[in-house]
Amino acid sequence: MARYGCVEAGGTKFICAVADEAGNIEAEVRIPTTTPEETLGQALRFFQTQHGLGDAALRSLGVACFGPVDLQTESPTYGMITATPKAGWRMTPVVRFLQEGLGVPVGFDTDVNGAALAEGVWGAGKGLQDFVYVTIGTGIGGGAVVGGRAVHGAMHPEMGHMRIPHDRERDPFAGICPFHGDCWEGLCSGPALRARFGEAAENWPEDHPGWDLAAEYTALAVQNILCTLSPQRILLGGGVMQQARLFPMLRQKTASLLNGYLSAAATAVDLETVIMPPALGSRAGILGGLVLALRAAGVEV
Amino acid sequence: MARYGCVEAGGTKFICAVADEAGNIEAEVRIPTTTPEETLGQALRFFQTQHGLGDAALRSLGVACFGPVDLQTESPTYGMITATPKAGWRMTPVVRFLQEGLGVPVGFDTDVNGAALAEGVWGAGKGLQDFVYVTIGTGIGGGAVVGGRAVHGAMHPEMGHMRIPHDRERDPFAGICPFHGDCWEGLCSGPALRARFGEAAENWPEDHPGWDLAAEYTALAVQNILCTLSPQRILLGGGVMQQARLFPMLRQKTASLLNGYLSAAATAVDLETVIMPPALGSRAGILGGLVLALRAAGVEV
Ligand SMILES: Nc1ncnc2c1ncn2[C@@H]1O[C@H](COP(=O)(O)OP(=O)(O)O)[C@@H](O)[C@H]1O
Ligand SMILES: Nc1ncnc2c1ncn2[C@@H]1O[C@H](COP(=O)(O)OP(=O)(O)O)[C@@H](O)[C@H]1O
Ligand SMILES: [Zn+2]
Ligand SMILES: [Zn+2]
Repeated sequence: MARYGCVEAGGTKFICAVADEAGNIEAEVRIPTTTPEETLGQALRFFQTQHGLGDAALRSLGVACFGPVDLQTESPTYGMITATPKAGWRMTPVVRFLQEGLGVPVGFDTDVNGAALAEGVWGAGKGLQDFVYVTIGTGIGGGAVVGGRAVHGAMHPEMGHMRIPHDRERDPFAGICPFHGDCWEGLCSGPALRARFGEAAENWPEDHPGWDLAAEYTALAVQNILCTLSPQRILLGGGVMQQARLFPMLRQKTASLLNGYLSAAATAVDLETVIMPPALGSRAGILGGLVLALRAAGVEV
Repeated sequence: MARYGCVEAGGTKFICAVADEAGNIEAEVRIPTTTPEETLGQALRFFQTQHGLGDAALRSLGVACFGPVDLQTESPTYGMITATPKAGWRMTPVVRFLQEGLGVPVGFDTDVNGAALAEGVWGAGKGLQDFVYVTIGTGIGGGAVVGGRAVHGAMHPEMGHMRIPHDRERDPFAGICPFHGDCWEGLCSGPALRARFGEAAENWPEDHPGWDLAAEYTALAVQNILCTLSPQRILLGGGVMQQARLFPMLRQKTASLLNGYLSAAATAVDLETVIMPPALGSRAGILGGLVLALRAAGVEV
């Protein structure tokens, strides 16, 4: 089988792997994210070592990258990490560096779009053309797939920063988003939940009042995503959504918020196939890199 | 030039026209929306009369239709108006009736998607691949174009029903959406503005406090659309947006809500090319039918 290079480029570490088109991983390294020179240099050396002759060549590379990034292929800053707060990484030409160093086509997208596409090929979005993948962890991010393609638009979606109703009588917490205060991410990311209650959600007891709040805010955001994109399914992953108890609460609250408006999503039972956990777990990131590599090589998945 | 049939199918009237691919209209009739038999029957007779031989034949028909409608081509109810509250119109097979009666391909989409596509071909979205068209009138509807195609998804977007922050101390009005109370449409459609203040917005003086509220709610919704779809532009039309004063207010409020988060949309000046009125006015509906007819005939616009 042909061999492809895959990168999950995160703010803490880069995972680099070589895989075949079925997703079998042949080699993998983890590189701490330090400076662009050091981290990208190590990634490139790994792929150069893996890049053999003939059938052993890497056909292409795919990078699912932390952002913000420039995804406009006709833009002069295409393939760069742009206005990131991460020290030293502003305007890093990720695609150009790897492409010139390795001489193979390089596919590029955000980490969350990569994960969404991977879920669409091998995971909980398999067979769907229109779905959304959301991660609720250190931040809240969303990737939208429309007609089988990740939505980019002018930049790329930043769903965590949508505005949702916030009843300050019930929840006086002001939110922690440095831009918006109480946007969805400001109210409901892992760090927001910890800041509000003084304890990280992974340590909360089952009857902690934070679960109901987290489910409530997420249900409001889910209604907005359903109304704006009309996806067939919304997958919710990330650290906070590891709590399986959130799913029934979220379905119940979404059904009661929608209040029968979308007839296909009238009850929590209807929503069992609409609001779901992703299936690839921590593999979604690197498999996202693989989908991008495959498409860069012209393989339709 | 080839001739195409176009329908703007509304809850009050059907506009039927014959046009060429440049949008020149050769004949047009207005038919009141009574029963499906009567209204669709009259529409069909108009097109049969117009349908000549050879070059005078109608190559196809396009219908931009009030909803909700089924847009899934593989669905048994494709091309129907589905769960509408409009008496007598539930499960009306619009596409099948016209297609069997006329024997030409029939393109079909929602009225708002049709208008969005028309703005993309001839109007204020010309040259853009990713934009949104919103109408704020009797209801609030939004059509999203992604990669040049109207987003359908599981059904079609219903952006008016998104949830936005509602400060009940400032604005105690409960909202008029029968499903959600204070969703965007419930707070900010023409009838919502009238119900809140006892007078329709077209009669408000310039210093009426409702303008600020309408701009505020719409700015919140615009932020959500920007974060979810990342469009290059959002066009806002419909009766309420006839008030040109709303545009500068809306840009100012959106810029201050975003608070620098999207660097390309940091100021009200940046937003002058992002938040804009549509260009086709009341012609968007029938020209939407024309885009759908052209695409149904395989003409790429
Ligand atoms: N099992 C859990 N239950 C609830 N919250 C969790 C759990 N695991 C991690 N978190 C929270 O999720 C956040 C980390 O998110 P995660 O998705 O693991 O990483 P990242 O977003 O950085 O990739 C932290 O704020 C943490 O408190
Ligand atoms: N010039 C105007 N200024 C403010 N509001 C208006 C204006 N014209 C119409 N409206 C409001 O818009 C609504 C009608 O919307 P419109 O887009 O004209 O029709 P529809 O949505 O039914 O196609 C009414 O509620 C009306 O009060
Ligand atoms: Zn925010
Ligand atoms: Zn509503």
